[in-house]
Amino acid sequence: HLGLSISDQRLIRNFNDTSLENRRLFAEFFGTFLLVIAAAGADIVNTLTHGSVGRVALVTAPALTVIAVILFMGAVSGAHLNPVVSIAFALRRDFSWRRVPAYIFAQLIGAAAASLLLLTIFGSAGGSGRTEPGPGFTDLQAFAIEILLTCGLVSTILGAASGAQNVGSLSAFAVGSYILLAGLWAEPVSGASMNPARTFGPDLVSLNVSTLWIYVTGPLIGSVIAVGIAHILRGPGGGRSGRKAAQGTLGTDTDH
Amino acid sequence: HLGLSISDQRLIRNFNDTSLENRRLFAEFFGTFLLVIAAAGADIVNTLTHGSVGRVALVTAPALTVIAVILFMGAVSGAHLNPVVSIAFALRRDFSWRRVPAYIFAQLIGAAAASLLLLTIFGSAGGSGRTEPGPGFTDLQAFAIEILLTCGLVSTILGAASGAQNVGSLSAFAVGSYILLAGLWAEPVSGASMNPARTFGPDLVSLNVSTLWIYVTGPLIGSVIAVGIAHILRGPGGGRSGRKAAQGTLGTDTDH
Amino acid sequence: HLGLSISDQRLIRNFNDTSLENRRLFAEFFGTFLLVIAAAGADIVNTLTHGSVGRVALVTAPALTVIAVILFMGAVSGAHLNPVVSIAFALRRDFSWRRVPAYIFAQLIGAAAASLLLLTIFGSAGGSGRTEPGPGFTDLQAFAIEILLTCGLVSTILGAASGAQNVGSLSAFAVGSYILLAGLWAEPVSGASMNPARTFGPDLVSLNVSTLWIYVTGPLIGSVIAVGIAHILRGPGGGRSGRKAAQGTLGTDTDH
Amino acid sequence: HLGLSISDQRLIRNFNDTSLENRRLFAEFFGTFLLVIAAAGADIVNTLTHGSVGRVALVTAPALTVIAVILFMGAVSGAHLNPVVSIAFALRRDFSWRRVPAYIFAQLIGAAAASLLLLTIFGSAGGSGRTEPGPGFTDLQAFAIEILLTCGLVSTILGAASGAQNVGSLSAFAVGSYILLAGLWAEPVSGASMNPARTFGPDLVSLNVSTLWIYVTGPLIGSVIAVGIAHILRGPGGGRSGRKAAQGTLGTDTDH
Repeated sequence: HLGLSISDQRLIRNFNDTSLENRRLFAEFFGTFLLVIAAAGADIVNTLTHGSVGRVALVTAPALTVIAVILFMGAVSGAHLNPVVSIAFALRRDFSWRRVPAYIFAQLIGAAAASLLLLTIFGSAGGSGRTEPGPGFTDLQAFAIEILLTCGLVSTILGAASGAQNVGSLSAFAVGSYILLAGLWAEPVSGASMNPARTFGPDLVSLNVSTLWIYVTGPLIGSVIAVGIAHILRGPGGGRSGRKAAQGTLGTDTDH
Repeated sequence: HLGLSISDQRLIRNFNDTSLENRRLFAEFFGTFLLVIAAAGADIVNTLTHGSVGRVALVTAPALTVIAVILFMGAVSGAHLNPVVSIAFALRRDFSWRRVPAYIFAQLIGAAAASLLLLTIFGSAGGSGRTEPGPGFTDLQAFAIEILLTCGLVSTILGAASGAQNVGSLSAFAVGSYILLAGLWAEPVSGASMNPARTFGPDLVSLNVSTLWIYVTGPLIGSVIAVGIAHILRGPGGGRSGRKAAQGTLGTDTDH
Repeated sequence: HLGLSISDQRLIRNFNDTSLENRRLFAEFFGTFLLVIAAAGADIVNTLTHGSVGRVALVTAPALTVIAVILFMGAVSGAHLNPVVSIAFALRRDFSWRRVPAYIFAQLIGAAAASLLLLTIFGSAGGSGRTEPGPGFTDLQAFAIEILLTCGLVSTILGAASGAQNVGSLSAFAVGSYILLAGLWAEPVSGASMNPARTFGPDLVSLNVSTLWIYVTGPLIGSVIAVGIAHILRGPGGGRSGRKAAQGTLGTDTDH
Repeated sequence: HLGLSISDQRLIRNFNDTSLENRRLFAEFFGTFLLVIAAAGADIVNTLTHGSVGRVALVTAPALTVIAVILFMGAVSGAHLNPVVSIAFALRRDFSWRRVPAYIFAQLIGAAAASLLLLTIFGSAGGSGRTEPGPGFTDLQAFAIEILLTCGLVSTILGAASGAQNVGSLSAFAVGSYILLAGLWAEPVSGASMNPARTFGPDLVSLNVSTLWIYVTGPLIGSVIAVGIAHILRGPGGGRSGRKAAQGTLGTDTDH
């Protein structure tokens, strides 16, 4: 990596500083926790109130959570909040493979903690907010839709994080817009999860993992396709902006 | 505080200039007034028209009010509009404790004025737009949800105001997105107040403070937790950006 | 005006260049035309389809029109689109009084043209999209609400345009958010017009001006109050940013 | 074009580099694919679930797709996603006429691919998501509305892309806001297509082109009018910003 700017070197040095790694993992934990609170919580309250939340609000709440979390905490950990996002960044070499397991672990724990808290507050009468193929749709249709939706989501994340686009913090709205639009049209088919962690939490506390495979393999395949598309569109890697977006810029600001 | 930049010193000098303090307090009064007009007004009009406003609009109106107020008046006072936000900034030392009582007083007066005006215009037939635990939910559930929601709200406010994030005016949309998502999924449980002032105004004019404790202690506990989380995520204080966001930058611009 | 920067002098010289004035007036005409097409058109299509547009969409369409128009044409004329906005800017001395009559004329013609086109396309069966006090509300209540809503709208416009806030193009979203929130909660009361031109177009083609006084005097009073509030909050005038926002920056860019 | 900056010359040199042209065409293909997936997919899922998607979500999903696509891929190809947008940029000389046929071809192929994939996943029971004049409206009314809507859309695109406005990446939200508002009020009349490619895909797979003429000629006429209006508002051409927005800035960033 000859030719790195001082700012680049500082980014890498800080990223290798393990005293900051716990902050990053906590950020992934807390962000995924907030995401599952909104996504599964909306479903539970909707069930308990016989539909007073409504389908549009159900899918809007988690999309807005991702916008808020990226804006308030994206600089800490990159705000992946989703195992297949961490994997996609690693495939593009914007993120180190050896950090992926801990990120995914933090995301899964965050999702599980959210589902346990919702169970504690609301009991089991409202269900757990699981995502599953909707009435009238087959597992295969849900699987295909999860591949398709996640391909678009990860394309949006990789593109909006790239230096070529130079959209800065507006990338939060690109990602949030995508999550919302996917939910608006495809939630009745598959729940529009696009995120193994979001599905894992409710599946765990409801002790029902019968359809979890759809939400692990579908998003994974979709994200790998998106990495290929990103390569066609912009060549290898997301540039310095891509690395910054993937890794967060924790420790690099001088604003104190 | 050696090493302060000239801009820092100017910020502090202006903030200590009491001739500007009345502007700040008026801004907190007016902003909270507009917030309660929209939040309680939506509820009152919805009651008077037998539901023609609808639940999504009910929770969207106050969230958009906060976005508009932060963008048009955030530089004057910081646009806290909420006692627990003033307290959270003070706990992080981004805001002086001795200013907190007057800020809270201005917020409570603004909320009360809004509720009195709504009562004058619409009479008492539409209720006063109180927040209270929804049908089918216990006080304890509403209390837990107010803690949880406010923890996320104050985390968003502190994070988006920090220099580490560097999102500038987009922080208004982070905060608005959070308030909206909280209302979308949790309004049926507790009213998704997250704000003692917003609850105080309608409680005062309806002479019903039976559940006010939930909306004072819940948001307070949630905001203290959020300050702790912010410390884990970013260490002590919000940096210069955090102080500017908390205090407003009144008097520091040279745009005349 | 000694001490003006070269950019200031250029702004003033261009603004006095009458060859550009026709562009500005055309922009006010076209922007108000688009606003009334969306606002009144939504009402007409809703009537013709027995409610398939829905109340939330009815109030969202004009708010989004204002966002789009400010972003695509704000630099030409300031995108007032509303007589009381031109008057408020003039009261603050951000805009010349002698330009106000032509601006208002362009706005009224734009509104009338929109209403005539809608009448031509849809006939009179769908009504004309008039704003009037809603069922169950008195003229006086509608009048009070128009004062209150417009006070908030003009406060948002003046504040977001001020240099103190420094929100740049995001002011479009502050204004759009305000228009949307006002419609969401108060449309059932008064139609949430806040704009004499928006009400004038449909009233003209329906030959029914029985309630026009509400939508002329209410917004006018509200905007005068807002100018007073802006003076309390930020002192006289909106600074250079305020003048630029009020006047547009037509002819000052060098992007060719 | 004497006096071009180095950055200008680089932009032109890169745009003439045919090794980048395939990326641009792929971007137009993929963006239009995603647009039709959301627009037609929402309609199909709505039909299959007897209306559980709902009209507001139906029109919001494609608008958000355009926002996401512009933000994540606008720099590659300009993200036209619509034949009449390519034509409008060419009419304004912001885009070369000789590139128009390939852009349109890529858009049509993208739309057809989306419709074929939706047919493969959902079968024909849900229809194909065609746009057609709504119940109670004539072809002529739909034609007039498509002219009117597209005139506003292309005005928004040309204006937000111009250097005079200087809104940067926020142009994505101007365009998305316009598409959404058009759908919100006018979808019951004509489907609010404004885009021959969006209509072509579903028409092709349903082997029903009976009303395709409306959605080719209407948007075409509307976009020509918009180019004339843009000339009145800002004179010839969109300046360097307009060219960059029309062409994308692929290859001009130095972010690696």
